[in-house]
Amino acid sequence: MSWKDNIRRVVPYTPGEQPKTTDVIKLNTNENPYPPAPGVAETMKTLGTDDLRLYPDPAASELVHAIAEHYGLRDSEVFVGVGSDDVLAMSFMTFFNSEKPILFPDITYSFYDVWADMLRIPYKKVPLDENLHIRAEDYREPNGGIVFPNPNAPTGALLPVETVEEIVKNNPDSIVIVDEAYIDFGGVSALPLIHKYDNVVITQTFSKSRGLAGLRIGYAMASEPLIHYLNDVKYSFNSYTMNRMTIRLGAASARDSEYLAETCGKIMKTRAKAAEELRRLGFHCDDSYSNFLFVTHERVPAKEIFDFLKTKNIFVRWFNQDRIRNYLRVTIGTDEQMETLVRVLADYLSERA
Amino acid sequence: MSWKDNIRRVVPYTPGEQPKTTDVIKLNTNENPYPPAPGVAETMKTLGTDDLRLYPDPAASELVHAIAEHYGLRDSEVFVGVGSDDVLAMSFMTFFNSEKPILFPDITYSFYDVWADMLRIPYKKVPLDENLHIRAEDYREPNGGIVFPNPNAPTGALLPVETVEEIVKNNPDSIVIVDEAYIDFGGVSALPLIHKYDNVVITQTFSKSRGLAGLRIGYAMASEPLIHYLNDVKYSFNSYTMNRMTIRLGAASARDSEYLAETCGKIMKTRAKAAEELRRLGFHCDDSYSNFLFVTHERVPAKEIFDFLKTKNIFVRWFNQDRIRNYLRVTIGTDEQMETLVRVLADYLSERA
Repeated sequence: MSWKDNIRRVVPYTPGEQPKTTDVIKLNTNENPYPPAPGVAETMKTLGTDDLRLYPDPAASELVHAIAEHYGLRDSEVFVGVGSDDVLAMSFMTFFNSEKPILFPDITYSFYDVWADMLRIPYKKVPLDENLHIRAEDYREPNGGIVFPNPNAPTGALLPVETVEEIVKNNPDSIVIVDEAYIDFGGVSALPLIHKYDNVVITQTFSKSRGLAGLRIGYAMASEPLIHYLNDVKYSFNSYTMNRMTIRLGAASARDSEYLAETCGKIMKTRAKAAEELRRLGFHCDDSYSNFLFVTHERVPAKEIFDFLKTKNIFVRWFNQDRIRNYLRVTIGTDEQMETLVRVLADYLSERA
Repeated sequence: MSWKDNIRRVVPYTPGEQPKTTDVIKLNTNENPYPPAPGVAETMKTLGTDDLRLYPDPAASELVHAIAEHYGLRDSEVFVGVGSDDVLAMSFMTFFNSEKPILFPDITYSFYDVWADMLRIPYKKVPLDENLHIRAEDYREPNGGIVFPNPNAPTGALLPVETVEEIVKNNPDSIVIVDEAYIDFGGVSALPLIHKYDNVVITQTFSKSRGLAGLRIGYAMASEPLIHYLNDVKYSFNSYTMNRMTIRLGAASARDSEYLAETCGKIMKTRAKAAEELRRLGFHCDDSYSNFLFVTHERVPAKEIFDFLKTKNIFVRWFNQDRIRNYLRVTIGTDEQMETLVRVLADYLSERA
C-alpha cells in the first residue's frame, strides 16, 4: 500500500480552447458577443479594495435577492454558485446518492459523466432519437435521478415545457435537474414546475445570456427544502464561494431584465440569419433555441472544416464523439463575425467543390 | 423509496458571524485589519467589464505564476482555488480515498470533520497534549492521510519544521496536508519539504496575511505529480473557479512580497503588545504564531466575556466545544482596536472583581 492507492484518479472535462491572442473570432465556448448590462460597468466603478479584506457574505444575499426578484421567487428558492458547473456539481453531490443509475442523454453536456465518474455515481446514458432529440418516454425506467439540458447541448434542440413536466411527473421518486443554461435564447423555462413538484431543480447561468462568463455565476431554483439541502452541502464544502465583487456585479446584472431581453433578441436575430446562410452553403442544421448552431455539411467532414477555420483564426467546437463526429457547434457572435464566418466558408467550400 | 432517501444530509460548518453593520470591532474571523497591497488597488482601476464576457483562463496561469515566483517554485508545483477551503476540500477529495481513517487533531480547524463527514471519509481525532500542542509521536498509527494546521487553529501554537518533517517522514504511505493559513505571522513554513518528500502538501491562503479574505484565493504547493492529481479533480468539478478579476488582483498581491512582510510585521508587533496587556488583566495565553490570540481568563468564564463584548460591539470567537469552552479566540486588529478591547475588558473585569 502507498498513498498512490488512495488517489482519486479521474479523466477531467476538456473545456473549449481559450486562445491567448485576441486576434481571433471566438465561436467555440458559447460566450456572449455583447458586454454585460450597463449597470455592471457602473457598479465596477464603485468597487474599492477596502472591503476585499473582509470575508464576503456567505449567503451572497444581495445576488440571491436580485435573482429571486427577476423571477418573482422567494430568496429561499434560489441557490447561487461559481458558474452553473459549481451549481450542478453541488446538485449531483446533494441529490444523486442512490444505488440506482442516474439517467442523462448520450449526446449532452459532456460534464455530466465526468461528475458522475468523479463522485462515483452510477449512471446510464439514454440515447437521443434518430433526430438527436430527447424522448420523454425513454426516462421511465428505475433511476437515481435525471439530468438534461433544455435546450440540449450541443444540439440546441428544445423540449416543450409539457415534455419536461412529463419527465418530472413520471419520476416522483427522483430529483430531475433541468439545466437551462441556454433557455433565454427563445426557449420557455420549466421554472413554474418548481411550485407544482417537489422533485425538480432548474439551473441557469450568467455566462451565456448575461454576458458574464468571466465572472462565474450560476444558480439553481427549486422548492425551499431542496435549496436548503443544497446550501447545507455547499456550506460543508466552502462557505465563501462568491467573492464580494462577484456578488455586487452579478446583482447589477440581475436587476436589468430589459437589457437581457434586448441582447438575447439581437443574438436570436443573428442566429436566424446565420442559419439561413449556412443552409445555403450546404449545411444542415436543426432549429436552435440556444446561442449556438449545431451544423453538419452535406459533403465536407466536420473535422476538416474545423481545422480549416482554425487556420483562419476562427474557432468553433468539434466533438470527437460517436454520433456527432460530423457536426460543428458554432456560437452565435456578432452579425459581423457571422458574416466573416460565412464568407470564409463560402470561399473554402467553393474551392473544394 | 423516495428522492428523500437519496439526499446527502450534512451538518454544515458554522462560519464566524459577519455582522451587517460596520459599527463594530470585528475580531472574530481572523481578517487582516490592513488593506491589501497597493498594487491591488492599482490593478482594480484597470479592470473593465469587457473581458467579463469571456471565460477566464481555467489554469489561472497569471496568478499561479505570481505565487510560484514569490516562493521560487515552478508553476507546476502550485494549485489555486477559491479560498483555502476550496483547496482543502479538493485535496480531501483527491488524496483521502483510503478505507483507513485520516488523522487530525481533536482541537483544530473545525472544517476538517465537516469535509470528512460530507465526503464519507473515515477519520479519527487525535487529542492534543495537555498544553494543547500537537505531538508528532501521536501520528504513527495506520491511517489514510493526515491533516493539521500549522500554526494550529484556534490555538495559534506552532510546530517547528523538524516536527512537521518527522510526521511526514513517519507516514510515507499517506499524504500529509500541512494547512499553513497563518504561517506568515512568524512561523517557519514546511515548504522545502515538498522537494524532499513526495507525500506532503502545503496549503496557504490570501485571506489572512494578504488581507484579501473578500477575494477568495487559496493555494496548495506540492510535488508536480500531486498538483497534477489535484488539477484533474478540480477540472472534473468546475473548470473555471477563479474569475478574471480575482486572477489579476491576486497576482498583483502575490507580486508584492515587501508589503506582505511589512503588514505581518505590524500585526506581530500589535500581537505582542496585546498579549502582554491581556496577561496583565489575568488572561493566560500561549505564544501565538498567528494573527489571533487564544486566551482564557483566570477567573471569568469565556462565554460571559464573549457575551459582554458583544454588547459593546466587539466581536471575538467563542467555540462551544469540549476542552476549549473556556477560551476566546481574538483576532489581532489595529493597535487602536486592541487598545479599545483592553480598555473595555479592564473596566469589565474590575467591576466583576
